[in-house]
Amino acid sequence: MNQEIEAGSVGIVQFSDYVFEDELPLDCGRSLKNVVIRYETYGTLAEDAGNAILVEHALTGDAHLAGKYSENDKKTGWWDEMVGPGKPIDTSRFFVVCSNIIGGCSGSTGPRSIDPDTGKRYNMKFPVITIADMVRAQERLMQHLGISQWHCVIGGSMGGMLALQWGVSYPEKVNAIAAIATTARVSPQGISFNWISREAIMNDPNWEKGEYEEQPSRGLATARMLAHVTYLSDESMNNKFGRGLQASDNFDFAFKKDFRIESYLEHQGTKFVERFDANSYLYITRAIDYFGLSDATDGNLAEALKPVHCPFLIVSFSSDWLFPSYQSQELVKALLKNANDVTYCNIQSSYGHDAFLLEMDSLGSLLSSYLSNLPENGADNE
Amino acid sequence: MNQEIEAGSVGIVQFSDYVFEDELPLDCGRSLKNVVIRYETYGTLAEDAGNAILVEHALTGDAHLAGKYSENDKKTGWWDEMVGPGKPIDTSRFFVVCSNIIGGCSGSTGPRSIDPDTGKRYNMKFPVITIADMVRAQERLMQHLGISQWHCVIGGSMGGMLALQWGVSYPEKVNAIAAIATTARVSPQGISFNWISREAIMNDPNWEKGEYEEQPSRGLATARMLAHVTYLSDESMNNKFGRGLQASDNFDFAFKKDFRIESYLEHQGTKFVERFDANSYLYITRAIDYFGLSDATDGNLAEALKPVHCPFLIVSFSSDWLFPSYQSQELVKALLKNANDVTYCNIQSSYGHDAFLLEMDSLGSLLSSYLSNLPENGADNE
Repeated sequence: MNQEIEAGSVGIVQFSDYVFEDELPLDCGRSLKNVVIRYETYGTLAEDAGNAILVEHALTGDAHLAGKYSENDKKTGWWDEMVGPGKPIDTSRFFVVCSNIIGGCSGSTGPRSIDPDTGKRYNMKFPVITIADMVRAQERLMQHLGISQWHCVIGGSMGGMLALQWGVSYPEKVNAIAAIATTARVSPQGISFNWISREAIMNDPNWEKGEYEEQPSRGLATARMLAHVTYLSDESMNNKFGRGLQASDNFDFAFKKDFRIESYLEHQGTKFVERFDANSYLYITRAIDYFGLSDATDGNLAEALKPVHCPFLIVSFSSDWLFPSYQSQELVKALLKNANDVTYCNIQSSYGHDAFLLEMDSLGSLLSSYLSNLPENGADNE
Repeated sequence: MNQEIEAGSVGIVQFSDYVFEDELPLDCGRSLKNVVIRYETYGTLAEDAGNAILVEHALTGDAHLAGKYSENDKKTGWWDEMVGPGKPIDTSRFFVVCSNIIGGCSGSTGPRSIDPDTGKRYNMKFPVITIADMVRAQERLMQHLGISQWHCVIGGSMGGMLALQWGVSYPEKVNAIAAIATTARVSPQGISFNWISREAIMNDPNWEKGEYEEQPSRGLATARMLAHVTYLSDESMNNKFGRGLQASDNFDFAFKKDFRIESYLEHQGTKFVERFDANSYLYITRAIDYFGLSDATDGNLAEALKPVHCPFLIVSFSSDWLFPSYQSQELVKALLKNANDVTYCNIQSSYGHDAFLLEMDSLGSLLSSYLSNLPENGADNE
């Protein structure tokens, strides 16, 4: 990275939609017609297409990784601090791609899309998809963009699962993988929280078996509040909220938002309903549950990762209890057993799982130096 | 404890109901008329009433601590392993009392009781109560039983909060306190889980603002499932369930109970609805949220505990993340600062919070030896 370039914004960006010509086969045995993938790109693709980096978003993320849609746009993309000229993922050097996953609700085909066979929304007739299905759709986009190998696939949380899945599904198409705050197998505790979240949505009378016109907002907000607690840590909640009260000096002796943490959660839940779709939430959390790279190898993760020869960057955060450090370490051990080139860092942070969106300084310098030292595409990584 | 007595059952037991003559004043400023406290006793009260032990139940517990109601009764009381002749809480030596808390739904006055002013169920017109209110009601029972000082108050989880509250509310009426797997201040994370649980109940259309005839069963089951996850540990869930599937070799690609952990949670939730009342769940979790002994002393726990001079037994479990060990240690530090006599043990266990109902061997020997070495009632504990 050229330290003299002042880190800047990618500026005004726009998204593109790529519509598949052929059906997309899925792990469940069904297939999807007329799949749309929404994506954004930043920087310039090199002539040999060897400088392309794919960034994967998390559960409720989207393709809008960096920049703004207009001068007046108040919000930048979700990882704007990380992506731009002179930034850790340096767009003056790399061609960066981010696409909304299938099953999502931010432009790509998902449960609220129109089923071409019926002319109506899929809703719960949408097929149950997997992380591997999401990656299979992205591989079509890769072909469309004329890229034969990603220089690196980078993702945090669920995005890290997609990054790992790229290695297993298309080992020859990935030069390196950076998996941040993630796991190779979602734990029964993680599965439980997703189950309870879906219960909250499906129990909402406004869900109407997925055929709602208006969002099942209380159920979706409850699901989000639960997820939000798993993104924080006991320590960060103690530091930020403690047992502080919202409005008064004493308890209100009612069932209102008495504590500041309750008001905060309620705000997070309500805001979320405005930007995310309930059926998408059901489908994506199910895809997460199904993510267990070693399911087919009797829990032997090294065996499952055998086809992958590329170097890995694995990053965990000390206070992340959704995908705890020991799960990253299992991954590191399996990769070392396979003699992969592995860089691992357990960043000390009190922010819990959310640290992957907050610890920008430590994560940024780690990513930046990792990318600077990667071999050229196509190198023999064995 | 006489080691030669073979540990036995308290046998066939029955409960009693004590009805208060006077109104019970509450922290919220209101008061309750005609309060009923359901309780059970085991063993014989000594002439000087110096051998009485009060055992406090947890959130969804009841007064049925030990024994059976009839020969054909398939279930014993909830801590039967711990209470009986020759058992750790030895009924051949101690007179043991357990009472259902007010706000509960197992015989004591709670939100589903009849409001004497209207002749109808209180439901959401029931006053919001606190842990101190529950203890205030128990103190009336204590008077009724002719006991002037508990030899020891013992409780786990929410029961531990009541035990601690006894010390603060009635320091002269407690000879010793054993607080197990509990906290002196419920954390914002704990408050959050309770908030989300109540949302699940109150969002259930069958809740009907508390005026249901039939339970809001889906909401209550969801609340229980969430609580249940907080009672287990990541490790115990990995050990017991892992990513095991329920019925088939492959995913069902639907939203059914696919994983064994999902089936287990669903079973726990459904079973719970048969035995516990939704409105009680709302009121008791709110009382738990409100429990912060140091709220009135700007977070200074030692200051809050100053009036309490008795010895304490504090027990935590290494994998308990609902009331983590560090919270017990805060309590220990505050008590040591006040020069209380403190015995502390952090029992190594993978069972999470539930360990207080499962690690009977280590907890039993700890309690048994603690009770054997306690000073007589009324001793100067300073």
